[in-house]
Order: sequence, then structure tokens, then C-alpha cells
Amino acid sequence: MTSISIVDIARAAGVSPSTVSRALRDHPRISRQKRTAIHALAQQMGYQPSQIARSLVTGRTKTLGIVISDVTDPFVAEVMKGAEQAGREAGYSLLFATSRRDPDQELLAARLLLGREVDGIIVISSRAAGHYTDLLSSNGTPLILVNHELNDRHAHSVRTDNRDGIEQAIAHLRELGHSRIAFVAGPEGGRSSRERLEAFQEAGSALGLLQFPEWVIAGRGLLEDGLTAFSMLAGLEQRPTAVMCYNDLTAIGLMAAAGEAGVRVPQDISVVGYDNIPISAFAMPALTTVDQPKEALGRTAVENCVRALSGEEVPDVILPGALVIRNSTSRCGPSNRGW
Amino acid sequence: MTSISIVDIARAAGVSPSTVSRALRDHPRISRQKRTAIHALAQQMGYQPSQIARSLVTGRTKTLGIVISDVTDPFVAEVMKGAEQAGREAGYSLLFATSRRDPDQELLAARLLLGREVDGIIVISSRAAGHYTDLLSSNGTPLILVNHELNDRHAHSVRTDNRDGIEQAIAHLRELGHSRIAFVAGPEGGRSSRERLEAFQEAGSALGLLQFPEWVIAGRGLLEDGLTAFSMLAGLEQRPTAVMCYNDLTAIGLMAAAGEAGVRVPQDISVVGYDNIPISAFAMPALTTVDQPKEALGRTAVENCVRALSGEEVPDVILPGALVIRNSTSRCGPSNRGW
Repeated sequence: MTSISIVDIARAAGVSPSTVSRALRDHPRISRQKRTAIHALAQQMGYQPSQIARSLVTGRTKTLGIVISDVTDPFVAEVMKGAEQAGREAGYSLLFATSRRDPDQELLAARLLLGREVDGIIVISSRAAGHYTDLLSSNGTPLILVNHELNDRHAHSVRTDNRDGIEQAIAHLRELGHSRIAFVAGPEGGRSSRERLEAFQEAGSALGLLQFPEWVIAGRGLLEDGLTAFSMLAGLEQRPTAVMCYNDLTAIGLMAAAGEAGVRVPQDISVVGYDNIPISAFAMPALTTVDQPKEALGRTAVENCVRALSGEEVPDVILPGALVIRNSTSRCGPSNRGW
Repeated sequence: MTSISIVDIARAAGVSPSTVSRALRDHPRISRQKRTAIHALAQQMGYQPSQIARSLVTGRTKTLGIVISDVTDPFVAEVMKGAEQAGREAGYSLLFATSRRDPDQELLAARLLLGREVDGIIVISSRAAGHYTDLLSSNGTPLILVNHELNDRHAHSVRTDNRDGIEQAIAHLRELGHSRIAFVAGPEGGRSSRERLEAFQEAGSALGLLQFPEWVIAGRGLLEDGLTAFSMLAGLEQRPTAVMCYNDLTAIGLMAAAGEAGVRVPQDISVVGYDNIPISAFAMPALTTVDQPKEALGRTAVENCVRALSGEEVPDVILPGALVIRNSTSRCGPSNRGW
């Protein structure tokens, strides 16, 4: 049931593996007669030429390895989609491995891909960015970090401006008259989590918003976190009139919990998400959110990896986000006090 | 910027690649002195031992290749999650490649993975199942098809019972008094699409439901298809009182369109989805749907692939689905005539 390797053919032919390898590449140092015989034997044995074996000669495989943090996160899926399109256009195949949001698993996934001789590595949402230096510097494989960065000459960053995104969202709520805004935070250890929370707190201070510690609620960026956050907020004596969420999944979960409890969005409470995943336009009500240029992140990551491979200087890239105003936010009014 | 190969080290050391390969594996036929020298040279040149190069010796890489149809489909993501868990438990790494629902891309993805010496291939939602025979039979790599099947001794199937799922859903609607049921179909060329549509039509005949050709609407399993389907149904003179959708995304899109148009779900129209993706419990109203055992599909696919690799007989597996009744379906009443 195992696949046939060059070593197997060499054994059967009674020659060295390197002779088989050369014969299968039609190397002129191998006689035509021997080449024909080895080709015939390989075919008979069911040998499938391995891209890797070929790449031992060229040193390039035209394949990029992508480490993804969480297959069930629609944000990650949209970044992957952009990467796929750019890979196809540039003539590169993509291999994916997953980290399940775990720093150790992330490094294992990167090693797995490097072991398959990928030309470059892209990491979507790293938790272990600081640990790549040793892994990469020895052979100069380019590393592209999506929404992260690393001070290493082989590492390049493609991200969005979390601070600006949060500032746009909070300014929108402030314009609608909200001054009591809660925040449901993202997963611990994530760079975007930290940046969004810090930006929320700084915007709050700058705009003179009320800030209670119990208005910052822990989360992991999951639908379930929205449920938990809603019941925690509903249990407070001092309730907010609006909630800024780490991501859209959290916001959708929170809106569902509000609906269950008979609390109306946006009449009783305004809700803002982050990411603008496809389903958010179909939520009820349609979700106001900060759009991340997800496909552009994936596309730019692949394009810059290919540029780095061709020896070009590659700049770090920061793509702008943009607030998308839909129906989950409205003017703060009397009913906001009542829920 | 390229990685160092055994060939590079061989060139630098003035020996053959197979000597380098043996030295790095501490093969006794190579003198200790030479081994030490080659190890030192390899380290100095920044050589990273390749899993593949090692696997040329063992014939096994403890890696499975998974071809996934659509990264943005939450059903696929949940199957991947189950596969990941089972892979970790069995000590196998997983490499993923994508087909973007295209039969040609699917075969390219499978070839890409086979070229990286994976021990087995799993395909989540195949469009090209008939074309694997040539690809696999020559070397006996096991193939596991999720929600598909292929008559080949190396191919094994893990699926859910689409007919039974649809029958459960239609029986539920019939019990609620609905006899005017529309169907929004899935992507052309998909096996589950065909089975669900056929099951819908057969259940309709068996139960004596009204069947108009315009009550079967084409779709691709996307959110947008729900929007289109709703406006097509709203434009009919003979409107249905319930809609069965190919999948949850279609159903969520359809409910959003209904909400926009002021048509109430379930009071005016009942809606049923298929898959039970995580977000469906958070839809407004929470979606009645046929639960597919998504993680179990992925888990069983990996487990059976590992069993096939160890030479065990592996049966085809059909896992049961189960209707999950939530709030998007209700008894057919007078308001169902009015929308």
C-alpha cells in the first residue's frame, strides 16, 4: 500500500538511487539504453514522479505553505480565498496546514510545510511570530505574517490598521450619542485582540466616555462569547447603550442572545462587529462592522512572498479598514436606558 | 533564498548525493569520520532535514493529504475540524489543498498532495470522483471520499444519508400542515445536490404534495442564492408556504431576504436548512435544519484512511443525520396564504 520510491526502483534495478534519479530526468551521463530500461521499470512498478524529488534539482517547488490558525473562522477563510486567487495567477500551488490557534502547533505546522520544501511560508494570524527567526534564518525562506510582524530580514508583514478601525467604530457610536460603550475582547495572546482593546480604551479616554472595568468582557472571538457577554452585561446595574465586539462572530452571538431576551438591536442596544465576514450582511439586523480587506490581505501576502522569492525588496504593508454602517446601530435614545 | 538540498551538500563535499543521504542518516557503511564531516558541512550550509528525503527510506510520511472543495463553506470547515482532531490522535499530520469546487482543480490538488508523498488522500466533497482510479491504482494510495463514493478497491466512502435527511425534513413540514413546499437546489455536479433534490421530489410524490416546476429553484449553496430564491418565490402567483433549502447558508440568505421584505419566518413562511452549521443556531429565528455529523465525517475519514494504511479491511460508512427543530418552522395557518 506504500508508494514506490526511487530507492525501491534502484533496488529492483540493481543500481544506485542517484542513477535512477538521473535516468528519470534523462541525464546525458546515463546511457540511453539504461534510461529506457529504468523508465520502463519505474512505469511497471507504478512510480509517480515526486515534485519533491524533482525539486531537489531545481531548488524551487513553486509551492507556498500557508499556516492557518482556525479553519472555522470565516475571516481566515476569506483571507485564504484571496491567497488562492493570487497563487493561481502567479503559477504557485498552495499547501495548507493548521495550528488550531496554538503556538506550538503553529510551529509544527510551519515545520511540516518546510519539510515539504515549500518556497515560502505565510502565516494567517500568528501566535508564535517571535519563534520563526531560528526556523527560517538558516535557509532564507521568506515568511509573510498576516496581521502580525517580526523584526527579521526574511519576515514581512501584511496587516490592517486595527487602531484606525476601532477609532472609526467608536467615533460612529459617539456621533449617534452613545457614551456608555462596552467591549467584548478577543482571544488572549492574539496581536489583533490586544491592539483592538488598547484602541478601544484610548478612544474612550480621548472622547471622555464612561469606562467601567466590568464593561470590558473577555472573549475568544467565538459565537458563544457573544452569548456570555450579553448575559454578563444584562446582569450589571450600570448597563451600556452600545457594545463594540472584537469580531463579527461575537457580535452575531450577542445579537442572538439579545433577541432571545427580548432586547431589541438597535433600539435598545447598538452593536458593532469587526471583520465584515459575508454572513454579517445577512444577520438580523444586518451588522454594522469594520470591514477588513480580507481577500486583499491574502492576495498581498502571496504576491509579496513571490516578490521576496525573486529577490525584490518587499515593504511591510498596512491596508486600511472601513466602517460599514448597517442596521445594528442607531441613535442613543430613551429606550437605551430601559433594557 | 533557496533551501539547501542534499545535492548542494554533495557538490560542496565532492561526494555523491546518496553518500550525503547515508551520512546524514548515520548509515554504518559510511565511515564515522566522513559522517562527522558531512554533518558539520550540512549544518554550516544551513541544511534542514527534509521529511520527504527521510521518507524515501521509510516509504511512509505519517502525513495525510486532504483536498477541500471550498474554504468559505462552514460545512467543510467543521469536517476539517473533525479530521484535525483524529489526525492528531493518530499521530498523523495533515496537509490541505483546495479545489475551489472545480473538478480539474480538484485533481491538480490531489496530484500536488501525492507529489508531496502523503500516505493517503481524503477528498471533502468531490466533483471528480470518477477520475481517481488512474491516479491511485498504480501505487495503492488509499482514497477516502467524504459524501461521495467510487467503485475502486483503494477508495472508501464516508457519507451521510441525504435521502433520509430530506425525508425527515419534509415529514416535519407535512406534520405541521404544509403541502406547498418549494426547494432551493444546490450546486450542479454535486452528488449531495442531486440526492437531496431527488429525495425532495420523491418525498413530495409519496406524500401527495403539490409540485410545480417553478417551486424548484436553482442555487449553488451560497447565501446569495437565498436572496434570489426568495424574490423568485415572491414573484409567483402560486406561492409555497414552506421552503426546503439545499443548505443552511441558502436558508439564512432566504430568511434575511424575507425579513427585508417584511415577510415573517415562520408565521408567513417556514424555512428548513441542511447541515446545521454553527451559525444556524444563532440565526434569527434560529434555523430548523438537518444536522449532518460534520466532525464525525472528518474523524471517520481520517480513522478509516489510517486503517486502510495498516492493511485492514475498511467498510464504506454511512452516518445518520437528524432533524433539529428550532424556530424557523411552524404550523401552516391562515397567514401562510397572505405573504
